[in-house]
Amino acid sequence: MKKNFFVLGFTAFILLAGCSASHAATNLSASKENHFTYDHQEEWEFVSGKMQSPIDIVTSQVIDYKGAGLVLNYDQAGTSIEDNGHSIQVGLRGTAEIDERSFALSQVHFHAESEHTIDGKHYPLEGHFVHKAVDGRIAVIGVMFTAGKENQAFGQILEAAKANAKGEKGITIDNLDIGQLLPAHLGYYHYLGSLTTPPLTENVEWYILKDAVQLSQEQLDEFYKYYDNNHRDIQELNDRKVFIKS
Amino acid sequence: MKKNFFVLGFTAFILLAGCSASHAATNLSASKENHFTYDHQEEWEFVSGKMQSPIDIVTSQVIDYKGAGLVLNYDQAGTSIEDNGHSIQVGLRGTAEIDERSFALSQVHFHAESEHTIDGKHYPLEGHFVHKAVDGRIAVIGVMFTAGKENQAFGQILEAAKANAKGEKGITIDNLDIGQLLPAHLGYYHYLGSLTTPPLTENVEWYILKDAVQLSQEQLDEFYKYYDNNHRDIQELNDRKVFIKS
Ligand SMILES: [Zn+2]
Ligand SMILES: [Zn+2]
Repeated sequence: MKKNFFVLGFTAFILLAGCSASHAATNLSASKENHFTYDHQEEWEFVSGKMQSPIDIVTSQVIDYKGAGLVLNYDQAGTSIEDNGHSIQVGLRGTAEIDERSFALSQVHFHAESEHTIDGKHYPLEGHFVHKAVDGRIAVIGVMFTAGKENQAFGQILEAAKANAKGEKGITIDNLDIGQLLPAHLGYYHYLGSLTTPPLTENVEWYILKDAVQLSQEQLDEFYKYYDNNHRDIQELNDRKVFIKS
Repeated sequence: MKKNFFVLGFTAFILLAGCSASHAATNLSASKENHFTYDHQEEWEFVSGKMQSPIDIVTSQVIDYKGAGLVLNYDQAGTSIEDNGHSIQVGLRGTAEIDERSFALSQVHFHAESEHTIDGKHYPLEGHFVHKAVDGRIAVIGVMFTAGKENQAFGQILEAAKANAKGEKGITIDNLDIGQLLPAHLGYYHYLGSLTTPPLTENVEWYILKDAVQLSQEQLDEFYKYYDNNHRDIQELNDRKVFIKS
């Protein structure tokens, strides 16, 4: 975002200059946000880019969250597999009840290393389960993976990825035990952020599960053959808060 | 937003030019969103400005909403009054349960004519009850006002506004019957949008109540002495949907 922030700043300068020219008599000490008139709406500045993801989660600063827990009703099948040039992505079906609202599950994909960090520490892999509500709200459940015992479900995904890389078409994963890609306990860190790839849309509810899931080092190495550096840089928290649901 | 869109377009051009220069060999037919690399994150473009408010609500195209209704627990008092140069704003206290999540009420202010339109038609006044959830989520309940019988609660606000205009300090409104500023039935139109004044933040859940509230033409004329044209232009819906909760 470094260059992006520079350009946004430049944009702000243009707009502010335009505004000062046409209202030279207005109070110069007023905040930029308060400095607008309904007669010149074309000069209004849309401030954005302050709620980007991923972030570093500082566990000493998280706040207890009163919201309801997660209820996941995911189908036991990968409906498709795709290497979109940025990750391996598996089509999924199912629903998630988040804070008692219903979201439809669409896919999971993986980042290496993890995109989010916990107290500055990356995990070797992070899975993103992407959901959408009817009104367009996006919610992503993030799962941290750590090296340990082999994960059979992740193995099925690696196999499908290999077939896909060979050019096989229409691959699905039957009997995908999706529960193996999730921890037993669904406690989470929650904050409001963005997509972590362009268009970086800021309308995203993040739920990063507290408990990590194991896969083997061999499985990690196999995934790294496709992607070993597809994680976005950590973004500023700005004035956001991070919550914890234990 | 016209100039703003122009400037955003200009920003996009700069970034795209930067991207083309460094990856001249990449597939030019790929969508801009798919055209990024993790090695050059500073070139990623944050696309925004597609979810602005207000909008025109086309009632023949709204979709039934399954969400829970609104439960409003507003205190019967205006804690402050302020003319912020763009509207008359009354500080409020209370909570709203929206889709079973809790939001804290902070204030109500008024736009003339209405900002949202229903099938292209403005109302003479629109009130915005502004709420915030702990995680920073903003929800605004919009109330349309129409000329009819006198509204005692709105009369109390006009009185406080007059005292405020005379320079009286620390004005509060005791025993504000806030129910008179809301219709009996809380059916609503819902969509995701933005603040309608700078910084135009796109993180706002809108609930525009279907039923209008009456106040007298004299009360409208009294408000127009302060503001008779403080409404933002209608914004493009783009690919958003509008929902109805009857
Ligand atoms: Zn992701
Ligand atoms: Zn407003």
